[in-house]
Amino acid sequence: MKKLSDMGERKAIDIVSAIFKTKDVAVGIGDDCAAIDIGEKYLLITTDMISQRTHIPKQMTPFQMGWFVVAINLSDIAAKGGVPIGLVLSFGLPKDTSEKFLKQLAEGANKCAIDFDTHIIGGDMKETSEITLCGTAFGTVKKKEFMSRKGIKADDILAVTGNLGKAGLGYFSIKLESHKNALSKHLFEPIPRLKEGIELAQQKCITSCMDISDGLSSSLYQLQKLNNVGFEVDLKMIPISKGLIGLKKKNRDIDIYKIALNFGGDYELLVTIPEIKFEEVEKNLRKIGCKLIAIGKATNENKIMVFDGNVKEPLENLGYEHFKKHLF
Amino acid sequence: MKKLSDMGERKAIDIVSAIFKTKDVAVGIGDDCAAIDIGEKYLLITTDMISQRTHIPKQMTPFQMGWFVVAINLSDIAAKGGVPIGLVLSFGLPKDTSEKFLKQLAEGANKCAIDFDTHIIGGDMKETSEITLCGTAFGTVKKKEFMSRKGIKADDILAVTGNLGKAGLGYFSIKLESHKNALSKHLFEPIPRLKEGIELAQQKCITSCMDISDGLSSSLYQLQKLNNVGFEVDLKMIPISKGLIGLKKKNRDIDIYKIALNFGGDYELLVTIPEIKFEEVEKNLRKIGCKLIAIGKATNENKIMVFDGNVKEPLENLGYEHFKKHLF
Repeated sequence: MKKLSDMGERKAIDIVSAIFKTKDVAVGIGDDCAAIDIGEKYLLITTDMISQRTHIPKQMTPFQMGWFVVAINLSDIAAKGGVPIGLVLSFGLPKDTSEKFLKQLAEGANKCAIDFDTHIIGGDMKETSEITLCGTAFGTVKKKEFMSRKGIKADDILAVTGNLGKAGLGYFSIKLESHKNALSKHLFEPIPRLKEGIELAQQKCITSCMDISDGLSSSLYQLQKLNNVGFEVDLKMIPISKGLIGLKKKNRDIDIYKIALNFGGDYELLVTIPEIKFEEVEKNLRKIGCKLIAIGKATNENKIMVFDGNVKEPLENLGYEHFKKHLF
Repeated sequence: MKKLSDMGERKAIDIVSAIFKTKDVAVGIGDDCAAIDIGEKYLLITTDMISQRTHIPKQMTPFQMGWFVVAINLSDIAAKGGVPIGLVLSFGLPKDTSEKFLKQLAEGANKCAIDFDTHIIGGDMKETSEITLCGTAFGTVKKKEFMSRKGIKADDILAVTGNLGKAGLGYFSIKLESHKNALSKHLFEPIPRLKEGIELAQQKCITSCMDISDGLSSSLYQLQKLNNVGFEVDLKMIPISKGLIGLKKKNRDIDIYKIALNFGGDYELLVTIPEIKFEEVEKNLRKIGCKLIAIGKATNENKIMVFDGNVKEPLENLGYEHFKKHLF
């Protein structure tokens, strides 16, 4: 009898998706958000759960837990070019949770929502053995601006909206240098790229978009499965978190490229754009203070390669996947 | 320092609600669903989480767990008169969960959604220590037909859409007579009263509606807090589950009224209706095969009384509340 630990999160989702008889929905399971046709726009819906076991290390403050569960849901709305309408949150908490903890948790969730021009409109609270937080975010996007995970063509430019390895920096700064609040912020208080997502969507030429929640390699393998393309990533073009480079100077064993390629939690957007459009799109994002950094391109070979300036090698799929053993 | 076990679920929700800066929303925290103005209609949103610790006894099958998390979310849509659009589900599962378990869980969730003319359009799956399932349901209702929890006037008839004590029957049949599948169904496979909710909403005269998830007494105390009224419940008018009456014949110690008043999990709708409208509304529901049973009335005294044919006594608030000690 197969167990979840044998199959991993994505195979498990495939099994469940085959059972759910989803009908008459513009976008169903398998993208960052589901999308429902409501006339001129799509209603976007996404849900994400975090629990003590996998997402909440002891260094994370209650404020950060609240921020995190809101941020990762808004990140999925961002990846589709959506404007958030609101969120509902379910808090599963042990009964010895203090009032102070509860208040800080709510304050973190509220702060993230308010900072990104949205709000928490409802929720649920239940008794659980371990802290388990579940958020659901809604948003809208004009139908013509919806950015799917599908639609990549060979030679499209592959780009990201910011530095990779920030969450890895947070993780290793805790692991190697005890807890440094300023650095762990990158891991525990990710920034949903809503401004970037909305601006990208308005360019009306994005051929795919998703958020990098489980690491770049994992995201590329997911995109490859959905699109009949391969990718070539240029290692030297990947924007690496400056803090991570700094951490490497003091800790030589750290492989910054391995982290930038495989460590999850950066929540940058990963987009593909037709080559002739890239320059214009990049300029438009820069105008509003957003970044877009080319890191490679789509190819018509069905494999994912990484080029380090000398050698071109297959990229291993070492990103994060629930229920499986992990690299870090 | 206060803990959740000192304050209980409802006080904890008050604390959190005061922190969330919810703005520009038609109905926010404190009703069965949040409601967002989308033109002619409201978009209804509700979320409900269940976990092994509090909702999933060992007798519950994976199919029933899936059914349950969908049903209780649809029940909240029903309570506002809504037509469901869809659900998203987050499954938090231990890594030794089997493929068979996962399939049955998904099949139960899917069956409940399909049986009530809706579908599961997305979700998330994460590794947790204990089974934790979180659903979010969406629906729409015409603005004029939305049934709030607020609006009760003295002398309104208090009514329910079906028998009470069904979930209690399930619970005690397991406890007293080992596991009887047919009876535990009432506890583990509740029926969301969507047909009733939609028909009630169309009557356009319902002064309040909520679902009885935590027991009748708890629901009445929640309505009292929101409305400047009291209630008088006539014990003899409460429709008691026939199975529960049968169980009492064999187990004399069972207090069927205590169960009908306080045991949660029946998911019937509790409505108030102006006295002059009640007969017509009841007839209209009967025409489509639905029940509406008067069990008392609202009063202008700010207390909740129960009348057993001889004595009128205050009704104790013994319903279910998370984090607190329980009656059953």
